[in-house]
Amino acid sequence: MNPAVNTKHHLEAIKAIQNKLLGKKLTYREVFNLMNEISHKRLSDILTTYFVAASFKEGFSTEELVYLTRAMVETGTKLNFKGIVADKHSTGGVAGTRTTMIIVPIIAAAGFKIPKTSSRAITTPAGTADVMELLGNVMISERKIESIVNDIGGCIVWGGHLGIAPADDIIIKIEEPLSFESFDKVIVSIMAKKVAASTNHLILDIPVGKTMKIRHFEDAEKVAKKFRMIGKHFDMEVITDISETFEPAGRGVGPYLEAKDVLEVLEQKKDRPLKLEAKALRLAGKLLTICFKDAHINKSGEEEARRILSERIALKKFKEIIKAQGGDDQVTSDNFKTKAHKKEVLPKKNGTIKEINNYNLNSVAKILGAPEDKYAGIYLLKKVDEKVEKKEPLLLFYSQDRYRIKEAEVTLQNMPIYEID
Amino acid sequence: MNPAVNTKHHLEAIKAIQNKLLGKKLTYREVFNLMNEISHKRLSDILTTYFVAASFKEGFSTEELVYLTRAMVETGTKLNFKGIVADKHSTGGVAGTRTTMIIVPIIAAAGFKIPKTSSRAITTPAGTADVMELLGNVMISERKIESIVNDIGGCIVWGGHLGIAPADDIIIKIEEPLSFESFDKVIVSIMAKKVAASTNHLILDIPVGKTMKIRHFEDAEKVAKKFRMIGKHFDMEVITDISETFEPAGRGVGPYLEAKDVLEVLEQKKDRPLKLEAKALRLAGKLLTICFKDAHINKSGEEEARRILSERIALKKFKEIIKAQGGDDQVTSDNFKTKAHKKEVLPKKNGTIKEINNYNLNSVAKILGAPEDKYAGIYLLKKVDEKVEKKEPLLLFYSQDRYRIKEAEVTLQNMPIYEID
Repeated sequence: MNPAVNTKHHLEAIKAIQNKLLGKKLTYREVFNLMNEISHKRLSDILTTYFVAASFKEGFSTEELVYLTRAMVETGTKLNFKGIVADKHSTGGVAGTRTTMIIVPIIAAAGFKIPKTSSRAITTPAGTADVMELLGNVMISERKIESIVNDIGGCIVWGGHLGIAPADDIIIKIEEPLSFESFDKVIVSIMAKKVAASTNHLILDIPVGKTMKIRHFEDAEKVAKKFRMIGKHFDMEVITDISETFEPAGRGVGPYLEAKDVLEVLEQKKDRPLKLEAKALRLAGKLLTICFKDAHINKSGEEEARRILSERIALKKFKEIIKAQGGDDQVTSDNFKTKAHKKEVLPKKNGTIKEINNYNLNSVAKILGAPEDKYAGIYLLKKVDEKVEKKEPLLLFYSQDRYRIKEAEVTLQNMPIYEID
Repeated sequence: MNPAVNTKHHLEAIKAIQNKLLGKKLTYREVFNLMNEISHKRLSDILTTYFVAASFKEGFSTEELVYLTRAMVETGTKLNFKGIVADKHSTGGVAGTRTTMIIVPIIAAAGFKIPKTSSRAITTPAGTADVMELLGNVMISERKIESIVNDIGGCIVWGGHLGIAPADDIIIKIEEPLSFESFDKVIVSIMAKKVAASTNHLILDIPVGKTMKIRHFEDAEKVAKKFRMIGKHFDMEVITDISETFEPAGRGVGPYLEAKDVLEVLEQKKDRPLKLEAKALRLAGKLLTICFKDAHINKSGEEEARRILSERIALKKFKEIIKAQGGDDQVTSDNFKTKAHKKEVLPKKNGTIKEINNYNLNSVAKILGAPEDKYAGIYLLKKVDEKVEKKEPLLLFYSQDRYRIKEAEVTLQNMPIYEID
């Protein structure tokens, strides 16, 4: 390595940060150099912070957002696929809504590639990677991911160790202490990871609600528009699904309980969580529709998604994925047992459930030990609009640590999950 | 310490930084809490950087500047003096202009307090503290400083170890990697240190020139105005002296050579550096004028300064200061010997000196070993407008390390100190 060249790049990065701090727009050369320095850990935390801070108030122009996305992709690992490559993403933050693990086998069974890289828990008590880890290995190399997806169509792995858009991961660490991330920055983070995975068809789930990450429909529309706009620059068709969200779509919250919800839907069990199924079908249907269109196949996305699920073709595909990721493909919702202690929680009064507080739900589930304790979590026996009676259990607490169950009971007094009227 | 209270203050600091990043003005409560967290090292480098970055583009309002100054003072050590307390400060960056060590004894001899805390070298090859250290101890406790100043009127010490406005020192460290400090921030830094030292009469030396820190008179005027304005908020009379500066006022550059210049002026030697004397007298005169006015003494500041210097009263006072700081008061410019090797440098052509490059002068003096090697430096035999001839020495290089003298000679080819026409 030529030290003279490094000094030059380092000085250019400092100059670019100064420029951004002074309100100037950055060129692609400047942005690329910055992301390259950051991704190779050649920029100190202090200098990276100056760059992040510079973008808070002024934000980025459309061009800068595209430059950032492209530069984050170019300075990291790529997953290379040909043809139609589908993906699903949620702006997230809603507990107990594990649609990904239902959508991926449906899309793969329909004949399209869907190399899903998921995150671990950030704000919720479980990320998709935490849930999938109970069923198979999620730390898989890029070359292995490419072979699994080319072979059986889909995978559900953890994206964190792959070095995809590594500059983004470093920037996110700098943002944590301030608890402050702009919508613009969230969009760039997501899109960089999609572009690096060769995605060209994306369904984006944007839940809106009082206790969700995005609280207002106007904000959701703005975010959706920016996603579509950046998608256009990378030849990616982006379909957005904005939905008002009051509660988890499934019944389980926490890795084991969410995996069980997913298995019940794929197995088409009689008492499966129908709201979770409906949401997964709607998203899978929309995604299939754009895939069919571009593949010149004359089929209805939603109908095909429903057929694949109800005929248990998705279940079969899911087991292929589990096997390819080194898991036990004999697993069923019945033989998949918890190791946790259980405690029933009764309502304090009779009435009807008006609301479920997503923040409090996340917090209490974490107190129970999720996601580290994969069997910890909350099972919601009752959902919004249902009538409850004092003697009938409302929810179940699960944890491998009895002390944590007691602590969750105490916490529930100050952080109620249900509002009953 | 109550951990709950700390968490509260920490969260308030984060909130204040978010507010500033979003362009809001900060309250005194917010600023005080921030400076308190920073000065006690309870804020991480990353969070401190967000705060610093937030102020670059938008700057601070007058109120915020006053809040910052006050909060930096309140969260550190103070030097407590009663009555008229004078001080002198230079925005700095000019080599070989050691006026402080002449002004302090003049002001003290005139009967006013002048507790001078100086810095070590930052951009130049010597800070006043580095020069004074050759004559006496400069690391003196606050209580000792108070007793020396109450006793004999003045001192010349290093301010860096005193914990005066410690938040400022921490912020300066965060600014270094970006090489970026706003004028506003420089003003706050200086004023906080003055307020903490009980200063109420300040002369501010602002050199302006092509190779100085401040290059344009408009900038100097703006800086001067802000200093006066902040001074007013703290009942401090601030007099500014803006002067076009082409070259060092003295002849020596480097701790030993500058100390020798100072001794020659105080001793009123025949071949003393007259330009240095003139500058020191002008600044001391202006400072005395406002001190006399507020003490209701009917004397001319400049005349009195000249009398004190020429009658060697300042020399006597300087020796008292040296003695109080544990030095040898028998020192004279003649018995004060260098330990360095010397090398004459000849001009490359005949002609007249048009310019002296202050940056190159600083750089070459550092190559010779200043300020670590206190005897290293450059002695300027010729100054601007003087005629030079190829066979007559132009300057002298000094260093305890012969190899450094050779390196300085080579460097001089690419970084000329003189422009000869």
